[in-house]
Amino acid sequence: MKTIDVCLSPELMPLYDVSNRTVVVVDILRATSCMVTAFANGVESITPFADLEQCLKMKTRGYITSGERDGKKVEGFDKGNSPFEYMDNQVLGMKVAFTTTNGTQAIEKSKEAKEVIIGSFLNLTSVVRYLLLGENPVLIVCAGWKGRVNLEDTLFAGAVVDKLKDYLGLDCDAPLAAQHLYNLAKGDMSKFLSESSHVKRLNRLNIYKDFEFCLTVDKYKVLPRLKNGVLVSH
Amino acid sequence: MKTIDVCLSPELMPLYDVSNRTVVVVDILRATSCMVTAFANGVESITPFADLEQCLKMKTRGYITSGERDGKKVEGFDKGNSPFEYMDNQVLGMKVAFTTTNGTQAIEKSKEAKEVIIGSFLNLTSVVRYLLLGENPVLIVCAGWKGRVNLEDTLFAGAVVDKLKDYLGLDCDAPLAAQHLYNLAKGDMSKFLSESSHVKRLNRLNIYKDFEFCLTVDKYKVLPRLKNGVLVSH
Repeated sequence: MKTIDVCLSPELMPLYDVSNRTVVVVDILRATSCMVTAFANGVESITPFADLEQCLKMKTRGYITSGERDGKKVEGFDKGNSPFEYMDNQVLGMKVAFTTTNGTQAIEKSKEAKEVIIGSFLNLTSVVRYLLLGENPVLIVCAGWKGRVNLEDTLFAGAVVDKLKDYLGLDCDAPLAAQHLYNLAKGDMSKFLSESSHVKRLNRLNIYKDFEFCLTVDKYKVLPRLKNGVLVSH
Repeated sequence: MKTIDVCLSPELMPLYDVSNRTVVVVDILRATSCMVTAFANGVESITPFADLEQCLKMKTRGYITSGERDGKKVEGFDKGNSPFEYMDNQVLGMKVAFTTTNGTQAIEKSKEAKEVIIGSFLNLTSVVRYLLLGENPVLIVCAGWKGRVNLEDTLFAGAVVDKLKDYLGLDCDAPLAAQHLYNLAKGDMSKFLSESSHVKRLNRLNIYKDFEFCLTVDKYKVLPRLKNGVLVSH
């Protein structure tokens, strides 16, 4: 039986052999939610960068640059990582260079995987269907917050586990823990997360609207995947 | 306000500055449960070793040696890490050299802390009282399984957080997640854990009796703490 496991922090990646796995990278608030939104609105590609300077340099090559650190847009970048910045026609066909505090770091650490896809609540069913039809064992990599475990990414992992548990075997305890937490939270995820550290951080930054949007389930059908280091959705 | 945080795996220890913290090391199945039982039955001291060979050498210096790897007693050692091996009068006043797959490794990684104490369900209230009266911020370090997160240690962390939440501030999301899981599980922890990977592992090894015992709350009052690299309870 194909298995599914959950890596609750990118710092735990060395424990997992991902060479034969499909890795789902998730950073609900807000990197992967923003990426999914961007593809749904027609961007051509997103190149993830762990490093801020490298990302900014792509501006000279015609890329839109998206830079976020500690929840805030970085000076000199065209955009931050709010999904609402990727909802107009101007992004159609554009190439984006993207760097964030946690999400793009998690993608960087997942590069040894057999394949990497991008997950969020916004494209949950697309992710679940893809994993179900695929042949590889699955690892969901939660981006967390600077290496620490966070609730919102764990809930997404739990949602995927919950939907696949009858078809995939669970490795170890992290998928069980995530699934329990998701089942506790699913009735009102917004309320469940209101005590979480990252939501408090976002509230301080006045981006509650982003938070609500990022919890919307199945708004989009796109499934971004990494192809030679670049995210595409076709 | 004094804070409490939970480190769900020893691999995440580099993220935490423990120089001013009281660290509670927990390895419910079975290292710290066994240590607490040993002190309750009168052992004089327990010296934790990360390394198997170093531990075994202590035999020549009059120590009882306890060695466990992958849930099994190691050849050449006097004991494994079952609490039931520390329930007779013969351990009274003895010095023990102890090495296990996860627990003693977690202690080793906690050595930079201001102080280190040993927690288990068996001495839960002693741990909670000590943390409440102490002045240091708290970090609960879950031993996990070979670096991966496990449910039983997370539940213990959640129990401590649940009892201290009105007096200590929560750092980040791991304490919240642990507390939620504990509240889900507390009505019947044995049932809740029956699906966990480590319980399945223990069942294969025929040590269900240990599992039930290690979930007993407040059987003992002892509070082992690290003093110059050696655990004592006075």
